[in-house]
Amino acid sequence: MSQDPALMTLTEVARAIAMKQVSSHEVTRALLHRIAQWQPHLNAFVSIESEAALKAAESADAALAKGEVRGPLHGVPLAHKDMYYDAGHIVTCGSLIRRDFVATTTSTALQTLKDAGQVRLGTLHLAEFAYGPTGHNSHYGPVRNPWNVAHITGGSSSGSGSSVAARLTYAALGSDTGGSIRMPAHFCGVTGLKTTVGRVSRAGAMPLSQSLDTVGPLARTAEDCALLLALMAGPDPEDATASHEPVADYIAATKGSLKGLKIGVPASYYVDDLDAEVARVLEETIAVLKREGADIVKVELRDQRQLSAACQLVLAVEAAAFHKRWLIERPQDYGPQVLMRLQNGLAIPAVTYLEAMRWRGPALAAHNAATAGVDAVIAPASPIPAPTIAESDVGAGPNAGALLQRLTLFTRPVNYLGLPSLTVPSGFTEGGLPVGMQFIGRSFDEATLLTIGAAFQRATDYHDKVPKLPS
Amino acid sequence: MSQDPALMTLTEVARAIAMKQVSSHEVTRALLHRIAQWQPHLNAFVSIESEAALKAAESADAALAKGEVRGPLHGVPLAHKDMYYDAGHIVTCGSLIRRDFVATTTSTALQTLKDAGQVRLGTLHLAEFAYGPTGHNSHYGPVRNPWNVAHITGGSSSGSGSSVAARLTYAALGSDTGGSIRMPAHFCGVTGLKTTVGRVSRAGAMPLSQSLDTVGPLARTAEDCALLLALMAGPDPEDATASHEPVADYIAATKGSLKGLKIGVPASYYVDDLDAEVARVLEETIAVLKREGADIVKVELRDQRQLSAACQLVLAVEAAAFHKRWLIERPQDYGPQVLMRLQNGLAIPAVTYLEAMRWRGPALAAHNAATAGVDAVIAPASPIPAPTIAESDVGAGPNAGALLQRLTLFTRPVNYLGLPSLTVPSGFTEGGLPVGMQFIGRSFDEATLLTIGAAFQRATDYHDKVPKLPS
Repeated sequence: MSQDPALMTLTEVARAIAMKQVSSHEVTRALLHRIAQWQPHLNAFVSIESEAALKAAESADAALAKGEVRGPLHGVPLAHKDMYYDAGHIVTCGSLIRRDFVATTTSTALQTLKDAGQVRLGTLHLAEFAYGPTGHNSHYGPVRNPWNVAHITGGSSSGSGSSVAARLTYAALGSDTGGSIRMPAHFCGVTGLKTTVGRVSRAGAMPLSQSLDTVGPLARTAEDCALLLALMAGPDPEDATASHEPVADYIAATKGSLKGLKIGVPASYYVDDLDAEVARVLEETIAVLKREGADIVKVELRDQRQLSAACQLVLAVEAAAFHKRWLIERPQDYGPQVLMRLQNGLAIPAVTYLEAMRWRGPALAAHNAATAGVDAVIAPASPIPAPTIAESDVGAGPNAGALLQRLTLFTRPVNYLGLPSLTVPSGFTEGGLPVGMQFIGRSFDEATLLTIGAAFQRATDYHDKVPKLPS
Repeated sequence: MSQDPALMTLTEVARAIAMKQVSSHEVTRALLHRIAQWQPHLNAFVSIESEAALKAAESADAALAKGEVRGPLHGVPLAHKDMYYDAGHIVTCGSLIRRDFVATTTSTALQTLKDAGQVRLGTLHLAEFAYGPTGHNSHYGPVRNPWNVAHITGGSSSGSGSSVAARLTYAALGSDTGGSIRMPAHFCGVTGLKTTVGRVSRAGAMPLSQSLDTVGPLARTAEDCALLLALMAGPDPEDATASHEPVADYIAATKGSLKGLKIGVPASYYVDDLDAEVARVLEETIAVLKREGADIVKVELRDQRQLSAACQLVLAVEAAAFHKRWLIERPQDYGPQVLMRLQNGLAIPAVTYLEAMRWRGPALAAHNAATAGVDAVIAPASPIPAPTIAESDVGAGPNAGALLQRLTLFTRPVNYLGLPSLTVPSGFTEGGLPVGMQFIGRSFDEATLLTIGAAFQRATDYHDKVPKLPS
């Protein structure tokens, strides 16, 4: 092969390995080479398991030579957000408290990827306990944005966004509770799929908020996201909240066209107070969608600020409940921002929490009514491109609330409603930072989002751009 | 007919009407006659709709004459706890706040009884907003116990217990969130079925606590309870929490015998600090069960006091959330005890509530393990027989907490676990007050409880005793 295998998409490399155009060992070596170059600049990995990965790759190649195909990811090296339990391996959850925690079970989502033949490369950094939208981590330092290492990646799936963008893994599991997949997808210029609550089992994924947590992939393309979702979607005896809603053919969905699809553009909120470059990319994206045959219509989405607040409240309470014992026993082992946010959650009355939970049904019904005529709604993933590490390093200081609020303004309402949303690379700022647009879909209709994303990516090349190694 | 039709069971009268041995009009008149005699002593009814009931009875008779049978309750007059919405009718919920509230929908459970042909007699009193285990109601006065009108009925389904015991209705819907069916069944000497959470739709029933509320009948016999449950059990598009668990043949279940059934007797908690007469009745009941062929085995149930506390906490929070607007706008319109309890609920942190909710799964698993060898567990419904109205009139005073606690000690753990429990009249004190034993079953296994209750009632006649009209 003449092409650097590290630059292939997940779909391409899986096919190339299966067709023996390239070996798993060769691919794994290519990634490890890039990881060695990039990791000092990015801090994207928690652990890099070079020897084990190369050995597993060899074993995959040997199996393939004997005609044994483990599954659609046979021999494909992948690394994931370090909060997916993998029996026998340390899972830090980005924390000091779990620094030495060895999982005794394996996350169902991760197990499906292992069963499909993935090779474990190592693990990826994240915000402490996946609680934070910037990519800062007061214990292990920030993960850096490969497009400009002075900038944040977004969080909490910071390592996932950074490493997929820098082509250090073909894809990575993230998790999205308040925006944690879409934020790094947007800031790092990769494709990120926040799934419907219940679409993918959460068994063995570190819990943050049981009402809001979702498992999903970050990858280079919508097609790659479809490949992973197809493996992970569906019910799970280990997770009673994993839905029995029918699973679509996600891979087939990526072959569809934009023709005749109706895409809603919010008349307010998601278009207010946008950074000028984000506003420009939104306009450009809408123009591409139109050119490719989509109908663009205005939609009126109400109460988005209140939905965002309700999301924040539910998240704060449920996270505090999960952390209560550690908050009492080991408060000094949390970073200041995470500690502040978890302690805030302790003080919220149960009645307030129940009110926030009870609004969910009516709010979703109102959203469904407002979007009844459209297949998806387009919105920026965040009103701004990635801030610098310095300006976003607010810790638990007086500016923390406002910054966290601003970053997640456009992601939290979607979490509260439980809806799926696909973020796709949609352009760049003049300074060279990526900008992502999200397509917000109907409950359990990830397929339509993947159709839109893949069609958009056939018409554009933002997802093909590769950041340059800092000198 | 020579027998006073008011003294028949529900099953008997329904059959007698269907076979035209007695007319609905005749039966309704007989009940209205008793109601006129008893109501001044009991305060069991909120509304007595004599004219409308007689007209409906005539219409039922006319239909029957033409061969039209509406269903298994054709022409049977019934009254229910005044918290089941019935479109066009006032539903007071035992409160001042809802005194003039006209329902615009009809409760699904009630609708099934209407569809089955019941004749509406009126409505039955209850504790204010179904929140209170005594039968006191500071707005409308206490409902009185037909066995001794100086004593309480138990609550919150106070009118249901009182009127079924006095033979003023053949059966009555109650609701059980912390013991509200089993308490009046025990104190008034009737049969009361607390159903599994989710077994009967709660749509259109006044909500108290969404995690704990259950709909169920109070009637003279287990057979009568089976007849009503058979009509009401099953899923409901109006209530997403109504379960799709298979429905058993409850009426057939009442034909079964005790032979070979294993009944667990708790080694502690439910046998501790019992009133001497309650302890005697428990022993006597066990002796009957043995004689009828049941195997009696000891069971160790742990953490019952904590389960009771968890139930109280969940109930307090969820009730306060439902009432929050009125607590702000109309606190003066609540009775002092209900106001105190609802306000207590406002102050509970969300994290504490979530901890109580999260213990539910593990606690149920522990209960299931501890009772794996038995078909049901026997326990008194309360450690004491009905106290007097005077001694239990504690309002919001310093003794309120202890009294409410003591009364519901044996009912609340069952609510927290969501299990079904059937209370059957099992004896009398020397002073002539009824004593009821509850049979606590497996989730969604009401059928076995009905088998036990019906077999016990074939061997005993406590359920046949009729209180005498005070002079």
